[in-house]
Amino acid sequence: MLKIHEYKGFPNPTRIRIALAEKGLLGRTEFVHVDVLKGENRRPEFLARNPMGGVPVLELEDGTHIAECSAITEYLDHLEGAPTLTGEGARERAIINMMSRRAEANLLDAIAIYYHHATPGFGPELETYQNREWGEKCREKALATMHYLDGVLAKQPCIAGDHFTMADITVVAGLVYADYAKIDVPARLANLRAWRARIAQRPSIASS
Amino acid sequence: MLKIHEYKGFPNPTRIRIALAEKGLLGRTEFVHVDVLKGENRRPEFLARNPMGGVPVLELEDGTHIAECSAITEYLDHLEGAPTLTGEGARERAIINMMSRRAEANLLDAIAIYYHHATPGFGPELETYQNREWGEKCREKALATMHYLDGVLAKQPCIAGDHFTMADITVVAGLVYADYAKIDVPARLANLRAWRARIAQRPSIASS
Repeated sequence: MLKIHEYKGFPNPTRIRIALAEKGLLGRTEFVHVDVLKGENRRPEFLARNPMGGVPVLELEDGTHIAECSAITEYLDHLEGAPTLTGEGARERAIINMMSRRAEANLLDAIAIYYHHATPGFGPELETYQNREWGEKCREKALATMHYLDGVLAKQPCIAGDHFTMADITVVAGLVYADYAKIDVPARLANLRAWRARIAQRPSIASS
Repeated sequence: MLKIHEYKGFPNPTRIRIALAEKGLLGRTEFVHVDVLKGENRRPEFLARNPMGGVPVLELEDGTHIAECSAITEYLDHLEGAPTLTGEGARERAIINMMSRRAEANLLDAIAIYYHHATPGFGPELETYQNREWGEKCREKALATMHYLDGVLAKQPCIAGDHFTMADITVVAGLVYADYAKIDVPARLANLRAWRARIAQRPSIASS
């Protein structure tokens, strides 16, 4: 049995729910709700699981805790020795890793900083330090990244090439966060919009 | 032949030089100097290799460019099908990925933001936007991460467990950047300091 500590519907937990569905592992997973909106992820009990305070965290049967979505995905994808989301072979693995990392740093994480710094975010009790100007800069970065990804999708059907991978999941989560933070995908980014509509049909995403 | 576009001595290029040395690949690698201090990484020719503008970038013989150190390391580590730096099996790979990611986000990248925002950085011509307050916050984060890593090293000899991995390389690069940005490792972090002195003896690090 796998145990995931998370907040359902949040962008990073969504990444792992999609990965679990893609790997056929949802039936082997127990979800534990962490009430992030009440600061439960900042309390000692949770920080013992993940000192960085983020969700989701995967808890293994031996008590090991795995945080960071890239690491949890790596675990799930290698559980049965047949990686499909992170690729096979040096070149494919590197391209998927690169594209997922770009989407994480420049889209998903950038939107998180915008949300927590340039909007009310989780409210004054939890947002104890805000830097509005930096938040706005990160919003610009996220929009530039959407343009970049639109260009990528002009040339290939998926973010890292011909098929659906972890990189697509990371961009999906970024766009989930964009919706939440009220950053619209510009209408002229037709490739990004069409890709999103197309992969929304995948059972793993439709059910996430 | 592998080709690496880089700036020798910079923290991220150092990560890849160490990885190349660990994998015995230095003799198969050609290095191409990118004059980052003259803004060469912001010019169209370089942005065609890596739209994000960072070094290092690995160029493969088929013309594919791989950016992001995690991705380049993934490539080098799988080149001959025997991963040693990124681990084998789901659990080990996940722990190494998590620890490297923590070190990257909270140490190396945090110090980069401090350096580019709260110090003169590369100078006024290249540092066209600075946010000093955010830079100082990131310095605090880097120091907190050093404390966290010191605690990790109180329990195990290397950052991700018993042996040297990509996670150690990421922390080494973070401390290289700390030296460059004049952030001292606090004297009381005895485990982190002892670890650093110990792994400085490895040929891959001594020669980097």
